[in-house]
Amino acid sequence: MEPGVITAVLDRAAGAHGLRYAPDPASAALSTIGGNIATNAGGLRCAKYGVTRDSVLGLEAVLADGTVVGTGRRTVKGVTGYDLTALLTGSEGTLAVITSATVRLRPVPVATATLAAFFDSFEAAAEASYAIGRAGIEPALAELVDGPVLHAIDPALRERGAALLLVQCDGAGAAAEAEVVARVLAPSATAVETTTDPVEAESLLAARRLALPALERLGRPLIEDIAVPRSRLAEAVREIRAISARHDVPVFTIAHAADGNLHPIIVVDRSLPGLPDAAWEAAGEIFALALRLGGTLTGEHGVGVLKRQWVADELGPAAHALQRRIKRAFDPRGVLNPGKCL
Amino acid sequence: MEPGVITAVLDRAAGAHGLRYAPDPASAALSTIGGNIATNAGGLRCAKYGVTRDSVLGLEAVLADGTVVGTGRRTVKGVTGYDLTALLTGSEGTLAVITSATVRLRPVPVATATLAAFFDSFEAAAEASYAIGRAGIEPALAELVDGPVLHAIDPALRERGAALLLVQCDGAGAAAEAEVVARVLAPSATAVETTTDPVEAESLLAARRLALPALERLGRPLIEDIAVPRSRLAEAVREIRAISARHDVPVFTIAHAADGNLHPIIVVDRSLPGLPDAAWEAAGEIFALALRLGGTLTGEHGVGVLKRQWVADELGPAAHALQRRIKRAFDPRGVLNPGKCL
Repeated sequence: MEPGVITAVLDRAAGAHGLRYAPDPASAALSTIGGNIATNAGGLRCAKYGVTRDSVLGLEAVLADGTVVGTGRRTVKGVTGYDLTALLTGSEGTLAVITSATVRLRPVPVATATLAAFFDSFEAAAEASYAIGRAGIEPALAELVDGPVLHAIDPALRERGAALLLVQCDGAGAAAEAEVVARVLAPSATAVETTTDPVEAESLLAARRLALPALERLGRPLIEDIAVPRSRLAEAVREIRAISARHDVPVFTIAHAADGNLHPIIVVDRSLPGLPDAAWEAAGEIFALALRLGGTLTGEHGVGVLKRQWVADELGPAAHALQRRIKRAFDPRGVLNPGKCL
Repeated sequence: MEPGVITAVLDRAAGAHGLRYAPDPASAALSTIGGNIATNAGGLRCAKYGVTRDSVLGLEAVLADGTVVGTGRRTVKGVTGYDLTALLTGSEGTLAVITSATVRLRPVPVATATLAAFFDSFEAAAEASYAIGRAGIEPALAELVDGPVLHAIDPALRERGAALLLVQCDGAGAAAEAEVVARVLAPSATAVETTTDPVEAESLLAARRLALPALERLGRPLIEDIAVPRSRLAEAVREIRAISARHDVPVFTIAHAADGNLHPIIVVDRSLPGLPDAAWEAAGEIFALALRLGGTLTGEHGVGVLKRQWVADELGPAAHALQRRIKRAFDPRGVLNPGKCL
């Protein structure tokens, strides 16, 4: 398919054949497959189905010198030569221009079961989300929403708890899996609701989908995107709150819990010309926290321009130099998306 | 962990924590994690859990000039810089020497359900395996064994059918998924057995595990490793039989059905000094068939020396040249595993 296809349009077209494109970035209605591949976009369902890279089988791309190359294959498995498909996926347009993609489609799940659980604290919700995986369940999605975000969406929602954990299981075993999840959450949650009705499920997920629009009403959101080992999720949540307090910068956090991918969102007064120093400092401490916990600067959004200054800290000098060497092997004159990523 | 760790030893050590290393190459008892990563090894369970690449989070490697680099991360998700972990995985030792790996462990499934179904023809079994995915089920494994292999294992097994399909579902929803699979297989299978007992499951899977030792009793096996789009599996099976008949070369086929990955095995008389011309010709036609069906030369075994001559056919000249450029960027003097892969 051509790279300009809107992700949601692809998914709908697949739906006509009982299939779906598993990655579901929040931007699916606006973003293109080419953009998703260039940034190796994530989404809610990648908890179970992996990120964009895991659904890209092959690419056609134009190199810096104008040569057209094909990478990958049309099969699920294959190991002929180096994995250029994975190398181009997430390279942010700096290695080649993607002109066509072959993606993996998966059957639409026959059933889903969705749970919404409230907790007295965000840490408790984070611990509970970790316990789901430890109980042998790989949910299709597991989303955490903290109290300040709940309040921004609807004060009545915040009254139900200090954190919300949304979990969806899918497939023929969805109901059986949801039962296990409910048992795992019960001891620490203050309330757990389960539904197998798709409409009710959408209303449960609405809180998560409304998070960003709600924060945009409060000011200009700067969305961070760190990821940590899942066992450190509760610790990350605690530290982010301490950073927020120390700099007196409000930080609202949502997380793709099953991936350990946190979006701490700093909301800035729209009347200010730029980002205040305190916000920059808080953001810097959040990045440093991610690295200290064995994590990464960016779970799914990419480096772009904003995080360039931090890349060397994460990669270390040897890997950073090697990445630049790869860039030069692909693009010796630096014509492709200059100034981005590395 | 160090790369010399035997895969089965890692899996056992993970088991003490209720976890497992999902990829299960047939060689797990002998092969090392470093070797698995170098070849991006597959296995039975990669139908659901992906190949080695999907379980490798980060690597430490020594470059050709002696520099030590770290790649990847300890988190499930992350998009800082190029995906060097994926690039090194499957590079067959030609880009760097892997000295340490961080792998993803998953919880041991709480339950499994295993089905064994016999069919009147290998094509019917292949069609049925495709129908499982179309019904929305992603089994943990789906293995096809053709009639001649069944006969080689035990003539009594061959009397039960002309092909055997083994399917295992795992996780909390295993039993519910297995019910759907049984319903999907019922119309075309001559017999379907299901068990949730691990010991019985092992006895069902024994046929698959005994295939190679049984063929080794007949002669020297040359194991091919093509993969095709799953929708073309039955067609591939039919064509392989025609190739076998045309060259009068016995070809025994087992397949990881859920990946479209076929192992057509040519068994040669041990008294012969090398491979007869007819066997080479049959192997060549099998490779050509894989490419004609939109497939690949090697699903999981790699290129090594044996398939080097075919690599350019699959990659095409532009991608082949780009791969060589990457090789040169990593190893300008060609000191790493010379003569392999590209």
